[in-house]
Amino acid sequence: MLLFELADKLKGTLTGGGQKTVTGVNTIQDATDSHLCFLTSAKHAKSLSSSRAAAVLVDKPLADCPIPQMVVDNVNKALIAAMEMFAPKLTAFSGIHPTAVIEPTAAVDKTAVIGPQAYISHSVKIGAGTVIGAGCTIGENTVVGMRCRLDSNVVVYHNCQIGNFCIIQANSTIGSTGFGYSFIEGQHRLIPHNGGVILEDGVEIGANSCVDRAKFGNTIIGAGTKIDNLVQIGHNVHIGKLCLMAGQSGIAGSTVIGNGVAMGGQSGISDNKVVGDGAMICVKSAVTEDIPAGQAMLGMPPQEMRRELKCVAIYQRLPELAKEVKQLQQKVEQLESAKNH
Amino acid sequence: MLLFELADKLKGTLTGGGQKTVTGVNTIQDATDSHLCFLTSAKHAKSLSSSRAAAVLVDKPLADCPIPQMVVDNVNKALIAAMEMFAPKLTAFSGIHPTAVIEPTAAVDKTAVIGPQAYISHSVKIGAGTVIGAGCTIGENTVVGMRCRLDSNVVVYHNCQIGNFCIIQANSTIGSTGFGYSFIEGQHRLIPHNGGVILEDGVEIGANSCVDRAKFGNTIIGAGTKIDNLVQIGHNVHIGKLCLMAGQSGIAGSTVIGNGVAMGGQSGISDNKVVGDGAMICVKSAVTEDIPAGQAMLGMPPQEMRRELKCVAIYQRLPELAKEVKQLQQKVEQLESAKNH
Amino acid sequence: MLLFELADKLKGTLTGGGQKTVTGVNTIQDATDSHLCFLTSAKHAKSLSSSRAAAVLVDKPLADCPIPQMVVDNVNKALIAAMEMFAPKLTAFSGIHPTAVIEPTAAVDKTAVIGPQAYISHSVKIGAGTVIGAGCTIGENTVVGMRCRLDSNVVVYHNCQIGNFCIIQANSTIGSTGFGYSFIEGQHRLIPHNGGVILEDGVEIGANSCVDRAKFGNTIIGAGTKIDNLVQIGHNVHIGKLCLMAGQSGIAGSTVIGNGVAMGGQSGISDNKVVGDGAMICVKSAVTEDIPAGQAMLGMPPQEMRRELKCVAIYQRLPELAKEVKQLQQKVEQLESAKNH
Repeated sequence: MLLFELADKLKGTLTGGGQKTVTGVNTIQDATDSHLCFLTSAKHAKSLSSSRAAAVLVDKPLADCPIPQMVVDNVNKALIAAMEMFAPKLTAFSGIHPTAVIEPTAAVDKTAVIGPQAYISHSVKIGAGTVIGAGCTIGENTVVGMRCRLDSNVVVYHNCQIGNFCIIQANSTIGSTGFGYSFIEGQHRLIPHNGGVILEDGVEIGANSCVDRAKFGNTIIGAGTKIDNLVQIGHNVHIGKLCLMAGQSGIAGSTVIGNGVAMGGQSGISDNKVVGDGAMICVKSAVTEDIPAGQAMLGMPPQEMRRELKCVAIYQRLPELAKEVKQLQQKVEQLESAKNH
Repeated sequence: MLLFELADKLKGTLTGGGQKTVTGVNTIQDATDSHLCFLTSAKHAKSLSSSRAAAVLVDKPLADCPIPQMVVDNVNKALIAAMEMFAPKLTAFSGIHPTAVIEPTAAVDKTAVIGPQAYISHSVKIGAGTVIGAGCTIGENTVVGMRCRLDSNVVVYHNCQIGNFCIIQANSTIGSTGFGYSFIEGQHRLIPHNGGVILEDGVEIGANSCVDRAKFGNTIIGAGTKIDNLVQIGHNVHIGKLCLMAGQSGIAGSTVIGNGVAMGGQSGISDNKVVGDGAMICVKSAVTEDIPAGQAMLGMPPQEMRRELKCVAIYQRLPELAKEVKQLQQKVEQLESAKNH
Repeated sequence: MLLFELADKLKGTLTGGGQKTVTGVNTIQDATDSHLCFLTSAKHAKSLSSSRAAAVLVDKPLADCPIPQMVVDNVNKALIAAMEMFAPKLTAFSGIHPTAVIEPTAAVDKTAVIGPQAYISHSVKIGAGTVIGAGCTIGENTVVGMRCRLDSNVVVYHNCQIGNFCIIQANSTIGSTGFGYSFIEGQHRLIPHNGGVILEDGVEIGANSCVDRAKFGNTIIGAGTKIDNLVQIGHNVHIGKLCLMAGQSGIAGSTVIGNGVAMGGQSGISDNKVVGDGAMICVKSAVTEDIPAGQAMLGMPPQEMRRELKCVAIYQRLPELAKEVKQLQQKVEQLESAKNH
């Protein structure tokens, strides 16, 4: 594609270079002379001087730019559009693979795709345009909406509801029984999990993550929430809309999370907590109490982030603080001894 | 089912409402008027006033209860029994699915069930009433006992022994090679893992968890121990009976854990440690030394819980403590200067 | 095998017991009288007095050893060789299982093995001697080198490159889309991941681990690097050669790791960081800034290990330090009051 053609498609304005050939998108550093690069933060503008890119996507034209600029309204939006154009072309699956096993009571939309070796259980419903990958299991009575993508070896248990436009990546598990036991007569007895899981529209879940089903009612993940790899969502958790949960984070049973909450990598929230809208749980932090809306929490146990950073700063000079206290003790002793003589 | 019929089955005594229809169990908050709810702790009794439930399971009759009570010996036990009655009815699998692959030398009990696309390797034994889910692999020589349930896409490697009444949820891996390397001639060389894994009777393992096989002998998980999702058990670990390991916790190689040990979510124990009976590793804590029986450990590195909580309390007011030290320094300086004049 | 025969094979020198039968290798403690045991550290020599082993592998003959010694140049190397000899004999897979699905454009070497129910997509290349386990999916255009082993239910997405002599254990996922979103018009919009994953020669990955594909270019894991179970590698991460990543550790997007870096269990590195050659991230530590070569980091946030250990030591006696400060305050008050009178 020529640069001016790409600019047309992205509704961008070029400052030059329109006849260059573009074959992909890359970072300022790694772009070759047939790549479009992009500037999402002004502070990286100076690296443009060493970039070999054919042009750079910007939202405000730079006064002094060593390479052609493509000016667009929203760099991130144009970047996504460009990357979708240059995405690797893959062979489309279509129809139901002959090795898939589909129970007669399942209702698979005629535009849905069922991959090799998948198993679709009794009374399952699969919506239009949805792609079920190789080796997936979809449990009895589960409903998968329209235009979802479940990658290879995903397991969704019975009685779950997957909305529309959801993505679940490989080897993830939805609807497993949660970790709920009562100690009775010398044994940990499993509490039956009669509920299910609801993923609302646009939920995306990474690889090797788990969402447990509810004991009663449903574990719920709100519309537009995105979950990374190796994340654990306990039974009866309710997550709001548009949340982000980074890799290896986890939420224990029955905790309720508001909208727009962000969880950093390897962070956790213990059971039966309430986290307000827009709260942030920083990397590796472990929330053990309710968190008000909008608050950023850091540490273990966590505090409001700025407070925790102050505590960390002093913690890291504890050896000096302890020495100061020791010196004070000596001085005070000398003063006392002087007073007594 | 009518409430009095349910009371009969649970051997409970009703204080009224026997003719109401019951269709399920739910929490005090979420129960509808056809639900039984339950009271496991007296502190929640006051929420009963806003409950719509048909009745509440209690072990001691409440003097002043706004809804009918069903009095039983053990609420948790009756709750489990009730929930089992109201569990969703699923179509039973039976027999060996025609798409399963079973090597001729495998011995599958005639009452066992093998799901679609499962692979049962050479010389495997599968016990009576055991259900192997879709897409599972059971490795050579592995023995699975009676009345186990292995959910979809579970992988059990060769030479492992799964006891009776065990549950392994979807996408979990049992018997993988552990993380044991020697650095020899400029390479990390894998130490062969000639041992296996033993899960004793009644072990339950969540989804996407891993239990590594032993280098020598066996990795052992004791009877009645329950393990949550995304948990890592290293090679040659020995876990006692009736332990509980919450989500994303992990135990490194060759560590030995007593009976009745509890591990909180995202907690860990490093390799070659010994943890005594009934010890507790709190949420997110990282044990790096032996732990005596009965001790609760918190922190990173952890201390005995009450001690750690005292340290945390002072840690969280370190900015004030540092200020106090600074003020003391000024005052002492003034005192010294006064003394010298 | 007789002990002298084993010594011949391991090029070891025996101090006796050559006619004993050896059936395996085990630890000093657990060896029976037909086992060879091994001494990798002189400090364990005294446990030999209670060992029942037929002989002990040593690299320097012990002056006073209660059992026969087999002296070799390198105990670890001889140990690996011995364990390989005594590894359980398993039935070799061969050829392409009739239930595997292989697209016509895939090129599978005639010496490669494809297990039951595996799916090999379009234009995939599988090298000589490589074994693809049951239920694996290998995505379009992906190349798997020679003599690799992918265990059951591994998923490798499209356009990935797996080198030679690589091992990927069960239920791991390579090439999933990373956690990259832009918030646009009220939605988290996924940034397409047009790149792939490269595993260089000799990379070994445990069970249930994830390696995300790159947005641009490739996520790269260097030759000879070994990764444990339940590990997360984010998009565009570059890991050097001969690194070790223990269980449940993780690296967030675009971070660059040098050669020979070691990460402890449950440790993490946040995104866009640079970690120098030979650095060590200790157990449970969470790196949030660049780390120079050779440095060992501990804590959350981490410090250089010896410094952190000093801080921990004082942290753990904070209650006493706080008490000392309080006493100082009282004494200083008394001194001030005395001065003023």
